[in-house]
Amino acid sequence: MNSRLVIFQPSGQRGRVEEGKNLLEVSRELGVDIESVCGGTKTCGKCKVRVQRGFFERHGIHSQMEHLSPVTEEERELLTDDELSSGYRLACAAQVQGDVLLYVPEETRGGKQVVRKEVTLRKIDLNPAVKTHCVKLEKPTLADPLGDYERLLKTLAAQHGLEGLTAGRTVLARIPSALREKGWEVTVAVWMGKEILRILPGSSMRCYGLAVDIGTTTVAGYLCDLATGEVVAVHSLMNPQVTYGEDVMSRVTYIMTHEGGLEELHREIIGAMNQIVSQACKRAEVSSDEILELVVVGNTVMHHIFLNISPVGVGVSPFVPAVQQPVDVKASELGIAVNESANVHLLPIEAGFVGADNVGVLIAEAPYEKDEMQLIIDIGTNGEILVGNRDKLLSASCATGPALEGAHIKFGMRAAPGAIERVSIKPDTLDVEYRIIAGEGDQLARGICGSGIIDAIAEMFRVGIVEKSGRLNKSVVNPRLVQDGKSREFILAPKQETAIGKDITIAAGDVRAVQLAKGAIYAGSKILMNRLRIEKVDRVVLAGAFGTYIDRTGAMLMGMFPDCPLENVVAVGNAAGDGARMALLDINKRREADEQARRVEYVELTLEKDFEREFVEAMHFPHMTDRFPSLEGLLPRST
Amino acid sequence: MNSRLVIFQPSGQRGRVEEGKNLLEVSRELGVDIESVCGGTKTCGKCKVRVQRGFFERHGIHSQMEHLSPVTEEERELLTDDELSSGYRLACAAQVQGDVLLYVPEETRGGKQVVRKEVTLRKIDLNPAVKTHCVKLEKPTLADPLGDYERLLKTLAAQHGLEGLTAGRTVLARIPSALREKGWEVTVAVWMGKEILRILPGSSMRCYGLAVDIGTTTVAGYLCDLATGEVVAVHSLMNPQVTYGEDVMSRVTYIMTHEGGLEELHREIIGAMNQIVSQACKRAEVSSDEILELVVVGNTVMHHIFLNISPVGVGVSPFVPAVQQPVDVKASELGIAVNESANVHLLPIEAGFVGADNVGVLIAEAPYEKDEMQLIIDIGTNGEILVGNRDKLLSASCATGPALEGAHIKFGMRAAPGAIERVSIKPDTLDVEYRIIAGEGDQLARGICGSGIIDAIAEMFRVGIVEKSGRLNKSVVNPRLVQDGKSREFILAPKQETAIGKDITIAAGDVRAVQLAKGAIYAGSKILMNRLRIEKVDRVVLAGAFGTYIDRTGAMLMGMFPDCPLENVVAVGNAAGDGARMALLDINKRREADEQARRVEYVELTLEKDFEREFVEAMHFPHMTDRFPSLEGLLPRST
Repeated sequence: MNSRLVIFQPSGQRGRVEEGKNLLEVSRELGVDIESVCGGTKTCGKCKVRVQRGFFERHGIHSQMEHLSPVTEEERELLTDDELSSGYRLACAAQVQGDVLLYVPEETRGGKQVVRKEVTLRKIDLNPAVKTHCVKLEKPTLADPLGDYERLLKTLAAQHGLEGLTAGRTVLARIPSALREKGWEVTVAVWMGKEILRILPGSSMRCYGLAVDIGTTTVAGYLCDLATGEVVAVHSLMNPQVTYGEDVMSRVTYIMTHEGGLEELHREIIGAMNQIVSQACKRAEVSSDEILELVVVGNTVMHHIFLNISPVGVGVSPFVPAVQQPVDVKASELGIAVNESANVHLLPIEAGFVGADNVGVLIAEAPYEKDEMQLIIDIGTNGEILVGNRDKLLSASCATGPALEGAHIKFGMRAAPGAIERVSIKPDTLDVEYRIIAGEGDQLARGICGSGIIDAIAEMFRVGIVEKSGRLNKSVVNPRLVQDGKSREFILAPKQETAIGKDITIAAGDVRAVQLAKGAIYAGSKILMNRLRIEKVDRVVLAGAFGTYIDRTGAMLMGMFPDCPLENVVAVGNAAGDGARMALLDINKRREADEQARRVEYVELTLEKDFEREFVEAMHFPHMTDRFPSLEGLLPRST
Repeated sequence: MNSRLVIFQPSGQRGRVEEGKNLLEVSRELGVDIESVCGGTKTCGKCKVRVQRGFFERHGIHSQMEHLSPVTEEERELLTDDELSSGYRLACAAQVQGDVLLYVPEETRGGKQVVRKEVTLRKIDLNPAVKTHCVKLEKPTLADPLGDYERLLKTLAAQHGLEGLTAGRTVLARIPSALREKGWEVTVAVWMGKEILRILPGSSMRCYGLAVDIGTTTVAGYLCDLATGEVVAVHSLMNPQVTYGEDVMSRVTYIMTHEGGLEELHREIIGAMNQIVSQACKRAEVSSDEILELVVVGNTVMHHIFLNISPVGVGVSPFVPAVQQPVDVKASELGIAVNESANVHLLPIEAGFVGADNVGVLIAEAPYEKDEMQLIIDIGTNGEILVGNRDKLLSASCATGPALEGAHIKFGMRAAPGAIERVSIKPDTLDVEYRIIAGEGDQLARGICGSGIIDAIAEMFRVGIVEKSGRLNKSVVNPRLVQDGKSREFILAPKQETAIGKDITIAAGDVRAVQLAKGAIYAGSKILMNRLRIEKVDRVVLAGAFGTYIDRTGAMLMGMFPDCPLENVVAVGNAAGDGARMALLDINKRREADEQARRVEYVELTLEKDFEREFVEAMHFPHMTDRFPSLEGLLPRST
């Protein structure tokens, strides 16, 4: 029997399976949770998966469809024509006949994704861009036949001191009926004291805003009540662009090499935004028409694609963005299904890849207000670093790759139920204790998520399984250390404890991937610190959802950042998203963002002559030469 | 054989014809010029006409299709599905089986329409809203990686002093490639010194603007080179809304009584705008992308419908427009196919029905700059009157109906080839000399256009055929005076001289229609003059294409306006369109329009207690009591 490679996106779970098995069987074998209400009898139509053609086209293979059995009668009935032509199949009906890359759409995924981009409590002044005002107008008469709009403007000026307001065509069109519906009493929503966005009859109007952090991998939206500042719903989903490339550079390459590629990626992210809008609205019982303002952050490439502007300039030297300053654009122009007058505000870009997301982190953490020297690391698929204080701030971007998010790791998976998220290893027996993310009922491990990987590798280093150089120590003998072909692996969870019927391990290659990622972050931090002529920082801030879940000791133990007293290492969650939310609720934060983004000095790491040396040294656990006084007694004796 | 009523729109030509004849035969019989390349052999598909369902629905008849023979095989081949479902037929194939109202689309009309909305030479200062600027940028380097947009802004500020510019998303998206295409040299078009509308590589950009006068019956567009002010093409067409009602009130009624009616009428006018754009561009060899600014005028109802804003408020007391002030809106938002950044500027509305078209007349004639007392009459389907000088200006609107444009007149037609446009009658023999609008080859009369009607009735009055009261004088005996049923008629052109095989006459009803129209204008003028406490005006200005072609003596003779020395009665052509053009080419004229529109005092004639009496008196030829010293010796002795 032939074995075929099957990869499921977005989780990245993969494996070789027997030809002829259907995709639902394969998914179970590989621990991919696919919704199947009918249990594989081809009647419920729930187990939709999509053959990823984009990916294979990039690799010169034009049709993957032939690597699955032909479309069945049942699929023709249960899938729409659109779905069929987009490559959708029912997992229970399609049999593997060759290597295949599949995408499991959000709705098909069993076991709700744990939204790790949660809301951090932050003090935010409430001063949103959109405010509501109620007015009561004098009725027109033959002696006073002033136009409806002019009458409204006159009354708003007289009763609320609002002068020089404008209104778009659609608002103008609604004024006459709104005025007449409830006896010439209306409520208007006004943007930045300038533009009337909405008019409703009567004395009140609910008013919501949406802050969105477009990550390379995850898109997180925070729906806020603009009157109270309260977050009424959070909704995150995978960035659907992952099917075009997992990191920003591969997406830039896709755009450079595919006609219409920019438009495709743009449509994907707008589609995701609209999903967030509809889900968040549903959850909070808000109408999408009540969303009157959006603030969006994202790295430079995400920012440009969101605006349907080519990010190619930022992908080649001298790495120039098409636009850096804050952008305001009508949501309707981008096809975002909120109120058609709503504005989208994008925070500015610092430079190169250090985008609006890092500006979000910047205004959330406000290092420019502090004396203490901070190192702020925002860990995502791209890593951004900020170092400095009120006197000076430097920033840099480093390509960490998605390893820290669980991708490109043998048993890596996203932070979903069944993922191992915490690991500790007994030094003597090498027995492993781990904690998995709880789902509904299911309590067996399916894979390892980012924080679990950090923990596992830090522990493996602490107990001596992994050497300073990153090699697996050959002198350690234990039943958990096994050989899989050429690769040595350490068993975290033996197969009897897993949901996938096989051992979940950390392989030598996984250790290498993590070394590359953490080495880049450490080296980048060092370069910036050297520029500022400082040897230590007073505080390390780990931003990014990821930072919230990792064990800070473990992270320092493996050398993700230079030494710092452990009590001064803090995780602040999705600071980029928090910054977006702050800019949504307080327009002063937008001004601050614009000013500070221009003040930050961007350092292009690839141009730094020391970077390569620093990188090589930082690949070691925790570092080739740097000392870690704060880890006194925690490091293995060998270091 | 049954006879059936067939009416062809937009010319209004109509008649009873034998059942069973096809529409091409009928059109020839009624003098309607329909394009037919194949000569009625059902092969060319050129003779498309549309059955007007909208009209009949309004009158409770739901389908007119059954009043024509069934759709033939040939029609199914030659017409698109869309056309068939919209009620299109081939004139040569569809046979009359009942009363039917048809619309002859522009492209089907034989013999080019004479564009009577021509360009008047006026002194215009050239200071357009859109100006172009060429800049050469410093190339970015790793040491100077400023974003493309910021680099452009910086250079525009340094080289042209342009500060605080903005750009829409689509322009932002074009900047990177434009900059790189011709060595960092680009030309930008900037609107009002504020917004970048367009960017092109290299050192030049052509830049055009379109001024449009949306009349109730005719839409006229003037394509201008914004760099020179030159009019490079003029294109006019019928306002396609005529099929929903010939005057503004009937269109307001249509909107009030039909769900989606506003949207329908809006789509019609946008469609017409796009035809003007494409035709004018074709003629002048301009790309629609090179049109960067539009100025639109129209009466209040046309203005509102153009913006897709309900005009219902202006149709009922207290006649309140939804918006009066100047409006700027993106052409793309309205679906106008010019450059997607182009702005549409609408001149303000004075009050009630006195709309942006009259503001166009106002700034073209600038009575507010003069000492002499002027009466400015803009004659269209709606008549607007302005009286005053630099001290004070009054305006009013009067419902003249379309009689003066040749509609609702027995042999009325628009100013097209074959229309009688000038008439003189010998007092003794009542012999008629007339002039017709020349077409290609064809020199026989087909009907009478507006100026011909005025001329004919003025002459009939002068020679005594028409009495002061408007009645046809029964004591006059002449072979040209005939009886058609109950109605007395005067033959202008006997059938042997006509292209329609029958006498072309002025009927008693035609005289009545003209009396109503001219009476309304005269009475309105008197009311305003009384308000200003003046008995005479120094100057009468006839605006509107119509005013250009009528005989001023004839018009005064029949009493269209109060007495004024004939040398001071001037026709200025389409002043509304000229005003639009001036506002397009000189932004100071926009400011002037806004200021002066607010200064003009609007008088609601229907509220004036004297109006009815004035109207009754003004129905007489030339007036019941007023004297006309300027017509000394020209008036018939009886008056």
